[in-house]
Amino acid sequence: MDLFAKLKMNMGPLGKHSEFADGYFSFPKLEGEIAPRMKFQGKNVLTWSLNNYLGLANHPEVRKADADAAAQYGAAYPMGARMMSGQTTLHEQLEDELAAFVKKEKAYLLNYGYQGIMSVIDSLLDRKDVVVYDSECHACIIDALRMHLGKRYVFPHNDIANCEKQLERATKLANETGGGILVITEGVFGMTGDQGKLKEIVELKKKFDFRLLIDDAHGFGTLGKTGAGTDEEQGVQDQVDLYFSTFAKSMASIGAFIAGDPEVILYLRYNMRSQIFAKSLPMLLVVGALKRLELLRTQPELKDNLWKIVGALRKGLHDNGFSTGQSNTPVTPVVLNGTVGEAAALTHDLRENYSIFCSVVIYPVVPKGMIILRLIPTAVHTLEDVEETITAFAAIKEKLLTGVYKNSKLANSFSE
Amino acid sequence: MDLFAKLKMNMGPLGKHSEFADGYFSFPKLEGEIAPRMKFQGKNVLTWSLNNYLGLANHPEVRKADADAAAQYGAAYPMGARMMSGQTTLHEQLEDELAAFVKKEKAYLLNYGYQGIMSVIDSLLDRKDVVVYDSECHACIIDALRMHLGKRYVFPHNDIANCEKQLERATKLANETGGGILVITEGVFGMTGDQGKLKEIVELKKKFDFRLLIDDAHGFGTLGKTGAGTDEEQGVQDQVDLYFSTFAKSMASIGAFIAGDPEVILYLRYNMRSQIFAKSLPMLLVVGALKRLELLRTQPELKDNLWKIVGALRKGLHDNGFSTGQSNTPVTPVVLNGTVGEAAALTHDLRENYSIFCSVVIYPVVPKGMIILRLIPTAVHTLEDVEETITAFAAIKEKLLTGVYKNSKLANSFSE
Repeated sequence: MDLFAKLKMNMGPLGKHSEFADGYFSFPKLEGEIAPRMKFQGKNVLTWSLNNYLGLANHPEVRKADADAAAQYGAAYPMGARMMSGQTTLHEQLEDELAAFVKKEKAYLLNYGYQGIMSVIDSLLDRKDVVVYDSECHACIIDALRMHLGKRYVFPHNDIANCEKQLERATKLANETGGGILVITEGVFGMTGDQGKLKEIVELKKKFDFRLLIDDAHGFGTLGKTGAGTDEEQGVQDQVDLYFSTFAKSMASIGAFIAGDPEVILYLRYNMRSQIFAKSLPMLLVVGALKRLELLRTQPELKDNLWKIVGALRKGLHDNGFSTGQSNTPVTPVVLNGTVGEAAALTHDLRENYSIFCSVVIYPVVPKGMIILRLIPTAVHTLEDVEETITAFAAIKEKLLTGVYKNSKLANSFSE
Repeated sequence: MDLFAKLKMNMGPLGKHSEFADGYFSFPKLEGEIAPRMKFQGKNVLTWSLNNYLGLANHPEVRKADADAAAQYGAAYPMGARMMSGQTTLHEQLEDELAAFVKKEKAYLLNYGYQGIMSVIDSLLDRKDVVVYDSECHACIIDALRMHLGKRYVFPHNDIANCEKQLERATKLANETGGGILVITEGVFGMTGDQGKLKEIVELKKKFDFRLLIDDAHGFGTLGKTGAGTDEEQGVQDQVDLYFSTFAKSMASIGAFIAGDPEVILYLRYNMRSQIFAKSLPMLLVVGALKRLELLRTQPELKDNLWKIVGALRKGLHDNGFSTGQSNTPVTPVVLNGTVGEAAALTHDLRENYSIFCSVVIYPVVPKGMIILRLIPTAVHTLEDVEETITAFAAIKEKLLTGVYKNSKLANSFSE
């Protein structure tokens, strides 16, 4: 049949709501400087949906560094892939500073996090190798594993007993194929905010021979004494073999890096397809990342502020009977029960009547009947912002419980 | 066995040369403003290795737009994926202008080309669908197809008779599975500079039911009456169903777009994993792309200059007995015979004694015994640059033919 006709018959789990959702629930426009107060459809809203953990996006020194770098280099330089014509001294300097910061011997920049980690994983593995991974790893890791021709064993999210079982299977198979074993998990799971059980996983190294790669997108800058990430938080930095983070969260930019053993990083430099066949991270972003990393290292008060807000928000929610699931990181999921339609009505109410803008996670991302309001506190939120939010949440929860949303016109526009 | 120990034993086809190559043949640093004359290791070189076709990287209006956009928005805005919190009016405006320019009804921006086209292809297909593609498609297309669970049939590069055979097989299979057929090729093949045979492929639509996706990274801005790409050049714009280009070449930036049928673009918007699970293209780059697209449309003299240089370079090379293969685009491959070691010695000679910097393509990218010096002319090169280059090439060819490089110390440092 015609390929396009087929797509049009099934627009996908999110696409099927596009007629009602587009421009409001999906693809909303947040306007103005990145801050807790921004504009949505011409109205001021209190925003909890940006991963600007340390408030660096609009930090005056960051804004100056970004503006100066663009004036000096433009957005084009350098052109070409790193290997061909895209290498600069500042790319190397940023790599050295990142490696030192996360306590690894070597680091390598990636032109974008999603394709970057895909190519890290892809180039590490051949068909003899076996992967063991957490079931809730980010889409980029799953996409990487979809390219893998060898075996992969998944363990239920943070289930270490099962992880051990998968490692037993993997070890048996790797002994047959002559391949190696790679374990992949996240530092912080971005939807639910719980940490990967790194400590327990590295403990398994005593029984099994494997290498551990972690994606620490949400842990970098927010966890650990120095902000070096989830492995610092859990005291296992020397046992994590490859450390990956994007710049899209705490660093408030794009790009990413991978850090680890120098020979492995050299290997990756010469073999990652999305890096040898696509353009280098622009200089402008490299210079901007150097400034962000400097602030991350030298202004611990940013992380302290973040955690002050996280603590107040968490306490206020718990005092009002809300669950935040297993989160022990800044990611704050408020778990409620309701239909997709109710989620829409509630979100509309929050935005229109309480001026609060946060992301809503619904089926199929979470099970049917569950609604997660996902709050991302930042260092630039205030305690007043927290109070205002708790008050609003108490009100909408009451409405949800008493079925106010269930029969609204909006709720009934959405099917599941 | 240990995963890392295995990698260290085989650093890959390019990595095995790293000890001799690094910093000179691979990962060289080109310093200074992007222009035909840049610095390499402190020395001025005439550069032919940047895909800055129209010279926009350092165009004063582009530089001003980039600097102003960074001053206004910083590098962080907007944060989050397009669908969550990364949408802006200017993203939509750029999409509208791109769609109009390439004569499609709708376009959608992609946060990076490599992962962008991977997710275009990935989300178009399910396991029932069949892909027919050119054997020399870019790495990003191959990576996308590695995720495809259904069948894929490859035809030898630009072999239309074989493409027809593959379409016969694909049609038979799709009739069984109930799936659709997607044909993928490039507008311009970036290594060899020949165009995909779009005209011949769309002719096959009379016999077979398929959709055609083209990657026109090198054709966008350089080919066609208005610069709208290879499909405009070949008069088949209305027969190309999905048109993809990156901003990494003529547009001298990063990011990309996909254009086509509005409902299919809507479908893609809601289903491309690298776009719904990763950050939006930064505003700074969107504003910069708007300016670049404006210049591309309003200053046809940029493309005229490019083709003047292409013509002069091509003529000079042919007059001196060089082959440029099948290229009929600005990409100018100079094909020579020699070993990897000779390629290194020749490149070293070109850079050190003739101050010419160009990319060298060797085994395993091309067959053993072949060396391609790949020249990328731009609108900002001069006829004097061309003359200087032809003279140098005549000299190094003579040395290659008479075996001068064969016995050099450098040549013998490289094994194949």
